[in-house]
This record gives sequence, structure tokens and C-alpha cells, in this order.
Amino acid sequence: MKIYEFEGFPNPARIRIALAEKNLTDKVEFVSVNVPEGEHQSETFRAKNPSATVPLLELDDGTCISESTAITEYLDHIGGTPTLTGTTPKDRAKIHMMQRRAESNLLDAVAAYFHHATPGLGKHIEGYQCAEWGEHQKHTALKGMHYLDGVLASQPFLAGGDFSMADITAYAGLGFADFAKIAIPDEYVNLKNWRTRVASRPSLNA
Amino acid sequence: MKIYEFEGFPNPARIRIALAEKNLTDKVEFVSVNVPEGEHQSETFRAKNPSATVPLLELDDGTCISESTAITEYLDHIGGTPTLTGTTPKDRAKIHMMQRRAESNLLDAVAAYFHHATPGLGKHIEGYQCAEWGEHQKHTALKGMHYLDGVLASQPFLAGGDFSMADITAYAGLGFADFAKIAIPDEYVNLKNWRTRVASRPSLNA
Repeated sequence: MKIYEFEGFPNPARIRIALAEKNLTDKVEFVSVNVPEGEHQSETFRAKNPSATVPLLELDDGTCISESTAITEYLDHIGGTPTLTGTTPKDRAKIHMMQRRAESNLLDAVAAYFHHATPGLGKHIEGYQCAEWGEHQKHTALKGMHYLDGVLASQPFLAGGDFSMADITAYAGLGFADFAKIAIPDEYVNLKNWRTRVASRPSLNA
Repeated sequence: MKIYEFEGFPNPARIRIALAEKNLTDKVEFVSVNVPEGEHQSETFRAKNPSATVPLLELDDGTCISESTAITEYLDHIGGTPTLTGTTPKDRAKIHMMQRRAESNLLDAVAAYFHHATPGLGKHIEGYQCAEWGEHQKHTALKGMHYLDGVLASQPFLAGGDFSMADITAYAGLGFADFAKIAIPDEYVNLKNWRTRVASRPSLNA
């Protein structure tokens, strides 16, 4: 299988972590798509992914899967017992809920700020920008950090006792926040401690 | 288990369909949350769902699950063999991918138009509105319809040969589009035929 990505970008980072967690990194051919130059918007790439986003998973039979959650679901189910998306109905539900909250309240909010309220990847790549919306999403991201900090006051990981896909999303979201210069407020100690704990996992240090 | 909802609203509609597809409707106590009056923003409800959204699933042990995808994952896995979220890794991935596309390109885009570029549920409920962003999301929704119409040119359902969670999301998205007065362009015949086909399912006529 192939993963189309641009290394260091937040959503591709989610897949790099998932692959390492599942010991699958060696099974993948990574293909770099030059997003800053607009290669993701080319006809060739859109034929594989009409959403024109990275990461994209291409299976050996040609099936193309975009969307980080969908790719993570795939990797987690081919790599032995699921460890990132839950095994019981309740765990699956909690992980998907927290994943979505980490996405809409943090990662996607930071992305909206970066792409709309800053020059982002440059006018030739961004196209439509709405600065007012982007600024508002910065506040959404900060509120998201506040919420996640509160969750982590009573449990080690976002969906409970175990590391999951939800933690991956939030971790990538904080990486993007650094890049977009949205600092984690000092008082969010639980969030900062969790981040240090996640950063020390073998999958983040492969 | 309980489902907190406001009947007729698009995301609660997704769960009603999923429940009917899984023959679980009778197993649920439905609790109405008066969203137009702001009941979802009350402290009582936020204690169950900090995101202040419906639908919300409350299990008998008190666990609360928000986010329609997460709730659907739960219902699909307690209701016998999964039929809405796939059984093989590849099917799971395709369904989650198409679900997300139906959400971000249609349902969520219509929601953004409704809540930002129209009076929505009224100023007392909406709070912050960004009309420019809302208008832009109307175009996203129309492009989403175009994309889904193209997918349905070569396959009966959004993730392939079988009805899935992705179809539920898109179907609810079109219902919301009707309500928000975003008409499906006449030329999207595949999308219209698919809608008729979905509407005739027993789960939509219980």
C-alpha cells in the first residue's frame, strides 16, 4: 500500500503515528505530494482523491481512501486486534466521539485559523479565505484546548484509560497549533502533561 | 438506553434511521430536548454533552455519547453483525471516508449556511454568525451534491453496492438542504434517483 502525504503536515502526521503504533510503517510506500506547490490540486491527484487532500491511502488493488479517520480505521483493522479504535461497542463509540471533538474543536479549528486568518499556504493555494471566520476559529481552538484539559483532569487519555485514535488527532492538532502560533495557555497543565506523555511513546520516536 | 433529540432535526434523523435499520427503535427511550428554546445549552444538558448538541445517546450505565458517527458505530455493533459501518477493513474505510465527505461537503455545509447566512434558530440561540462564511458554505453544499451525484453514476450507494452510514448522512443532509431552501439542481439525476431509492427503505417508513 501507498500513503500520499506531505511530511510534517498535521493530518499526514496522524497516519504516521497510527502506522508506527500498529508496526506497519515498513509495509508502506510513502509518496510525497508537494502541497505547498499545489500538487494536491492537480488532475492526476484529484483522480485519486477528489477532495484534494493528504493523506491518501492507496491499496494494492487501486482503492483510494482519504480522510484520516477512515485510513486509521483501515490500518487498525488490518494490523491485528484493534488498538486505536476500540474493540467493544462502547469503546468504539467513546473513541469516535472524542476523535470528532478533538477534530472539530482543535485540529480543524486551527486549520481554519491558519488557512483563513493567516496567509496560510499562500493565495495561489488557498483560494477563498474568510479572515473573520478564521479568527473566530482560533477562539474555538482555544476553547477546545480548555475542554480537552478538563477531560484529562480525570483520565490519562482522551477516551479513557487507553491511548486511542482520539489522542492521535489531538496531538496532531497541538502540533498544528504550534505551527500556527496558537500557544497552549499555561494553566492547561493536564493537556501539557498529556502531551509530554504522548510524545514519549515509542511510536512518536521511531 | 436513551436518545436525546429534537425530532425532525437533521442529525437526530440520522440516528432514527440507524435505529430503524438495526431494529432497535423499540429499545430506546426518546427524550425531547427543546433546541429552538435553547434547552440544549442548559447546564443540565451540557453536563451530559459539553458540545451542547443533539442527538445524544445515554447508556444505562450513564455513559453519554454524542456525535452521530460515534452513536451509529455503537448501534451498529450492538445490533448483531454490522450492516451500516462495514465488516472488512476496506469496507469500514470506504464507509467512513464517504460518511465524512457527505458530512463536510453536504450536511455540515448546509448547517453552516443555515446557522450563519440565515436567521437560523434566532439570534438568542445562534450567538456568533458569519454571513459571508455561511454563503460560501452554500456553494460547498452545491459542490457536494455535484460530487455525490457523480459517485452515484456508477454505484447504487455512496460507499459501493450496499446501503451504509454514508447514505444516512447524505440523506439527512438533503433533508436539511430542503429545509434551508437549497434545491438539488435538476441535472443531478443520480442523486435524485438515489434519494427516492433510500426514501423507499422500510427504515424510512416505519
